[in-house]
Amino acid sequence: MSERLIVIGGDAAGMSAASQARRLKGADELEIVVFERGHFTSFSACGIPYWVSGDVSERDDLIARTPEEHRSRAIDLRMRTEVVEIDVAGGRVRARDLESGAESWTDYDKLVIATGARPIRPPLPGIDAPGVHGVQTLDDGQALIETLGRTEGKRAVVIGAGYIGVEMAEALIKRDYAVTMVNRGDEPMSTLDPDMGALVRTAMCGMGVEIVSGAEVTEIRTGPDGRVNAVVTVDAEYPADVVVLGIGVHPETTLAATAGLPLGKHGGLLTDLAMRVRGQDNIWAGGDCVEVLDLVSGVERHIALGTHANKHGQIIGSGIGGGYATFPGVVGTAVSKVCDLEVARTGLREKEARAAGLQYVTVIIESTSRSGYYPGAAKMTVKMLAERRTGRLLGVQIVGGEGAGKRVDIAAVALTARMTVEQMTALDLGYAPPFSPVWDPVLVAARKAVTAVQQRG
Amino acid sequence: MSERLIVIGGDAAGMSAASQARRLKGADELEIVVFERGHFTSFSACGIPYWVSGDVSERDDLIARTPEEHRSRAIDLRMRTEVVEIDVAGGRVRARDLESGAESWTDYDKLVIATGARPIRPPLPGIDAPGVHGVQTLDDGQALIETLGRTEGKRAVVIGAGYIGVEMAEALIKRDYAVTMVNRGDEPMSTLDPDMGALVRTAMCGMGVEIVSGAEVTEIRTGPDGRVNAVVTVDAEYPADVVVLGIGVHPETTLAATAGLPLGKHGGLLTDLAMRVRGQDNIWAGGDCVEVLDLVSGVERHIALGTHANKHGQIIGSGIGGGYATFPGVVGTAVSKVCDLEVARTGLREKEARAAGLQYVTVIIESTSRSGYYPGAAKMTVKMLAERRTGRLLGVQIVGGEGAGKRVDIAAVALTARMTVEQMTALDLGYAPPFSPVWDPVLVAARKAVTAVQQRG
Repeated sequence: MSERLIVIGGDAAGMSAASQARRLKGADELEIVVFERGHFTSFSACGIPYWVSGDVSERDDLIARTPEEHRSRAIDLRMRTEVVEIDVAGGRVRARDLESGAESWTDYDKLVIATGARPIRPPLPGIDAPGVHGVQTLDDGQALIETLGRTEGKRAVVIGAGYIGVEMAEALIKRDYAVTMVNRGDEPMSTLDPDMGALVRTAMCGMGVEIVSGAEVTEIRTGPDGRVNAVVTVDAEYPADVVVLGIGVHPETTLAATAGLPLGKHGGLLTDLAMRVRGQDNIWAGGDCVEVLDLVSGVERHIALGTHANKHGQIIGSGIGGGYATFPGVVGTAVSKVCDLEVARTGLREKEARAAGLQYVTVIIESTSRSGYYPGAAKMTVKMLAERRTGRLLGVQIVGGEGAGKRVDIAAVALTARMTVEQMTALDLGYAPPFSPVWDPVLVAARKAVTAVQQRG
Repeated sequence: MSERLIVIGGDAAGMSAASQARRLKGADELEIVVFERGHFTSFSACGIPYWVSGDVSERDDLIARTPEEHRSRAIDLRMRTEVVEIDVAGGRVRARDLESGAESWTDYDKLVIATGARPIRPPLPGIDAPGVHGVQTLDDGQALIETLGRTEGKRAVVIGAGYIGVEMAEALIKRDYAVTMVNRGDEPMSTLDPDMGALVRTAMCGMGVEIVSGAEVTEIRTGPDGRVNAVVTVDAEYPADVVVLGIGVHPETTLAATAGLPLGKHGGLLTDLAMRVRGQDNIWAGGDCVEVLDLVSGVERHIALGTHANKHGQIIGSGIGGGYATFPGVVGTAVSKVCDLEVARTGLREKEARAAGLQYVTVIIESTSRSGYYPGAAKMTVKMLAERRTGRLLGVQIVGGEGAGKRVDIAAVALTARMTVEQMTALDLGYAPPFSPVWDPVLVAARKAVTAVQQRG
């Protein structure tokens, strides 16, 4: 007898789960229904800044699979349909057709919650005014691009200076906007320690972004036409024809919470290793709506990132399809590009190490991405944290030119393997002049960290 | 009382050892004498192809530290002085001044052998003719560049198609030579499996290199002036105004062998983890003249690579300076650039896995170095070997565009940690559109390898 799988949310995690389940189970064994409230499926939210900047010319380039492609694989995909209630005891969901407003219940045998995240919108006066944009979905991106096309003024304010904020600031510069970035912290790229963030600030100022640090936004002011015209902080006021919110995101778990499913400290769903919602036999969750285990600190975190969402979906689909796969956790790897600067991190920042109660040493080294004599060798700064007593690697941050960013993967694998910095000094990394100095910068940092551990152990 | 350290060979391993020992012990504690038969110290042999091509304009750019710089650190460096005998029982070496021919004995308390490697010169007729060049030392590079400057003809033959051969072929193309590469194997880049080497062949043909495969060189023919004028194989004859030998290198261990020190199967010195020559208390060896443990197969190999030599020197110097550091071994990582193509490998090729008696599965995947929609996304092919029963990663080979090559480091760290391909599928690698598709190509290969292991386990 055929079972029915319902998936709530048709982006990375949801559609990966549905697709993988379909690969493993035919339509005669498993009916798959996906509810998606937006207009798009399986899109790359991470690509939105490049679409806004014009580096990616077509919105559809960001779509890995269209609804039609999914349907051709026997997935019953219901677009513009929002699930408004989960009845866990009854094994059913209530969905609303956003065009007609009609609602109906659908039973499930198995349920996947992949409701994603929503941009944080602080309860400021004016936050909902026309001209204020989040950039979480393709619908958001489309709305922003339409605003940019309509607006005559060329002044943009980006609120927040995390990855999205920084990437959006660059995108708007490329579109000839005068960009002010208003940031609560001391340095942009708050996912780095401030000493490394300072390197990013220099690069951003170099491309003409005005950065306002330590600023608390109190109001988004609107003009007589009701549209945004300024961002107001405690100390000043910044004229704005368009405002982009890059403050971060929050797990979209209202539905799950109402249904009584378990949420963690960050508001995300809690799951087991196989991405099954804790305490539930037939409900899985993945992507930006769940919390993940940080393998370095041992605590749960919320990290909204497409690459995790895709892995979750794959694992959920395998589980539903009768296999067994697990998501052991993350080490907190992220990489980004700001002009010609590559910015990356993995593991713990100092703040996170302190919060986890760890004693640590830090070292910072400067080297080059290629052999110093090879054309195009670019400066590269590496910061490394190691546990004081054991020498275990705790984290790495990298800021540098071409070839710097993806070197963070070396540390990501080393963190996963719980290597010490001493073990890292012996790593057999790829060396040739177009790729690295004879001592890879990560090895230079590891060597210096060994000395720091020995001295302060 | 002061001890005397003698170092034989003033390049990467020798000078790193001397410098590190000096850092740890002052001149009042340790006298350091280095004998170097050539004209240069601490140079980047790996950089020679880029000097020949003109990408690096000055020879001195390849020199990390000059003899004068070393001497200013209280290292007694004797250039153009060749050690011709080691008297282990007597604790002394006999050295010859290559200018005057004078010889003398010098006592040591501690000895470092860092005699490097020499290009393999098969005993062919004409192999020593003017116009035939190895490219192992700066002296070699200088001689080649002088030949190129003097020679009117523009036909070059490169014998051998390993890294050096391939890099030299490209360098000569950049200098407007018509280049023929004569290769005994079926595909260039013999450090890869032939199926991956074929991708390199396509790229090399694309830049105009004529590749002759499966060819056995029988003679290097000279003209009436005594200079080289052709390379002769069993089947054909290739006119040549200059010939470059890229056949590989052999450990330079004649001295050590004569002194009765232990050599391995590949002719390299055998050492312990701390790079001390086996059975000797006060003799160390490092760099291209030693064999290293392959951590994947468990057998000794000879790998001539500057990055290993530098590590060895560092470890030897630490040991002599009273510390303790070890070189656990290598996983066989190498990376190279051919035109716009990046070529990398780590771990075992199929041939090596078979030789080690391992049962394995292989997978090959094609992906892109960046998100497919991001400008500059380049094709990237990954081949992965995993042990059949255990799923342990055995090796990775990569051929692709910009950003492909250094991804081999992910696998290098995973090999060091003895990860399975299943563990690799969960790696938290850096993702953003300018750096990677949402599934990094290495993860795609790992996923496919998991399936292969499950099906054929």
